[in-house]
Amino acid sequence: MKYEFNITKTTSPKEKPNPDTLEFGTLFTDHMFVMNYTEGKGWHDGRIVPYGPVTLEPAAAVFHYAQEMFEGLKAYKSKEGDILLFRPDKNAERTNRTNERMCIPLIDEELYVEAIKALVHVDSDWIPQKEGTSLYIRPFIIASEPFLGVRASREYLFMIILSPVGPYYKGGLAPTKIFVEDEYVRATPGGTGFAKIGGNYAAGLKSQEKAHDKGYSQVLWLDGAERKYVEEIGTSNAFFVIDNEIITAPLEGTILPGITRDSVIQLLKSWGMKVSERRITIEDVFKAYEEGKLSEVFASGTAAVISPVGELCWKDRKITIHDNQIGTLSQKIYDTLSGIQLGKLEDPFGWTVKV
Amino acid sequence: MKYEFNITKTTSPKEKPNPDTLEFGTLFTDHMFVMNYTEGKGWHDGRIVPYGPVTLEPAAAVFHYAQEMFEGLKAYKSKEGDILLFRPDKNAERTNRTNERMCIPLIDEELYVEAIKALVHVDSDWIPQKEGTSLYIRPFIIASEPFLGVRASREYLFMIILSPVGPYYKGGLAPTKIFVEDEYVRATPGGTGFAKIGGNYAAGLKSQEKAHDKGYSQVLWLDGAERKYVEEIGTSNAFFVIDNEIITAPLEGTILPGITRDSVIQLLKSWGMKVSERRITIEDVFKAYEEGKLSEVFASGTAAVISPVGELCWKDRKITIHDNQIGTLSQKIYDTLSGIQLGKLEDPFGWTVKV
Repeated sequence: MKYEFNITKTTSPKEKPNPDTLEFGTLFTDHMFVMNYTEGKGWHDGRIVPYGPVTLEPAAAVFHYAQEMFEGLKAYKSKEGDILLFRPDKNAERTNRTNERMCIPLIDEELYVEAIKALVHVDSDWIPQKEGTSLYIRPFIIASEPFLGVRASREYLFMIILSPVGPYYKGGLAPTKIFVEDEYVRATPGGTGFAKIGGNYAAGLKSQEKAHDKGYSQVLWLDGAERKYVEEIGTSNAFFVIDNEIITAPLEGTILPGITRDSVIQLLKSWGMKVSERRITIEDVFKAYEEGKLSEVFASGTAAVISPVGELCWKDRKITIHDNQIGTLSQKIYDTLSGIQLGKLEDPFGWTVKV
Repeated sequence: MKYEFNITKTTSPKEKPNPDTLEFGTLFTDHMFVMNYTEGKGWHDGRIVPYGPVTLEPAAAVFHYAQEMFEGLKAYKSKEGDILLFRPDKNAERTNRTNERMCIPLIDEELYVEAIKALVHVDSDWIPQKEGTSLYIRPFIIASEPFLGVRASREYLFMIILSPVGPYYKGGLAPTKIFVEDEYVRATPGGTGFAKIGGNYAAGLKSQEKAHDKGYSQVLWLDGAERKYVEEIGTSNAFFVIDNEIITAPLEGTILPGITRDSVIQLLKSWGMKVSERRITIEDVFKAYEEGKLSEVFASGTAAVISPVGELCWKDRKITIHDNQIGTLSQKIYDTLSGIQLGKLEDPFGWTVKV
């Protein structure tokens, strides 16, 4: 092995949770990965230690200037007992694109993937095996230098924590009700929309609460400059099936380059379907609906893989999509992607990586 | 006293720093204020404790979704030995405007100010008295709930830390060189520009580094939608003196409502000068220069109070303002504001508050 991480095993392992009652992001495994960055020394001391608290100075930059980033991916255990990761190299790649924008030092991408593998290996007993469950992997970086001046930190922590999670939708792939946000803005050209950073999520909370209060589960974001073009759904990428063309917003700086998004596009292309990464207005989405051409809308992301949209509300206009049932295409994409992730289906793309 | 805070004094007080070599934001006093928020219980257990590290779960929301905010103000010791704060009620007010946008629970504004006073009182020996020095006060709030789902945290920490700081400009009010940023964007309508949150600062680091690399000390931000209108300078508000009119960007959601900004406006009005909170394009600023009408440009903020701009670079156009010397108006505003803050001048506005 090219990378060797010091491993300190816990002396008090926790009890494994009941797989039937797993939720998202509340329970954590016995270990975590930690690596330090110090200016002049680079990233150093990658190590696996017992899961436990982080101790920082109150003046640590992350608490004041939110210099931080995160990633998310999942590990699955196949029926054959293999531990499978889904495209972890893409998370490493995206981390560095985010880091570049946030003035965070880049990380060796091979080391990054090896750190994930090593940690998942140590806590592999924590990967739940019940249908729909998985081990959620959360790599993240925080600026730890205790300094109140506004500039990039000279010290960082890179950490990976693991959380056994249940199915995102307890009742199967239930279509969601989505509110089109035309007041708050998620991203704008020249901003940080493409980067996976805390600030984007903090800024979106208010809009999400507004949508919840109105009875919607998430928002559809419009572009920041004109509030005309559809961008993302909540924290997922958005796809619109119109007249047999599958349309998703292009990666021009405001859209998170989702790994599931990329996988959906490749999958659709491999099926010979017409996929377009192009701008489309919310007006055109509603017009397509009126003309009977809007057959499906869905969101893609790591947590739920595919999430069909059953209702869209834009100002005083409400439309029900595909009779509020999951569409055949959404279902097929979900079945194929999760089949590949779980090792149930062949993986012609070479997406899964064995630990 | 309406609010009683439990006080635990340190048993190992630190040595006070040399006032001649004080920098910004590197040293902290002996104590800090801490208060917890728990859903269902509200803000509770406001207390003063020895300055020391913060211990959080790795899954704490602040590390992942940057749900956090901060404030900044200063305490001064007058020649008569009074401890003076500058408009602390405005920081409390702005905190709640920020909290509302960030889904952070509001804080009783009177309690907020009393907490600042109580902490400054405990560490009053730390207020440096040399000309140009002060005690910088940093209140901040971080989301502490260990949960990876994307929603507002149900637990928070409100903290106040204190840092003795030196003069912002060692060589007096030296004019700065400012680069007009037309690639990166700080804020956009519907975003978080008016809120004092980490995410805004993290997003601005890249642009600041670019400006530094080009030999500039800060950037002048343009509006996010059209990149035409001037907004802020670095992390300060921007003022342009054109034809005896003093112009600053209006508070329409993208601009930080600076307390120094507000004080400058009130001061200028009290002097019978024409002050306008209105949009002005960078094109018009350069046109005014060419017509000999741009007499001064300055930034206002807590750290430097007033910072004159000596040079502006926009694309391939460079202009030198007021012969790269501080203007008479900038100097007069600086002298008056810092005179009031230090208790040297009369305070007709009732801005200073004795501890």
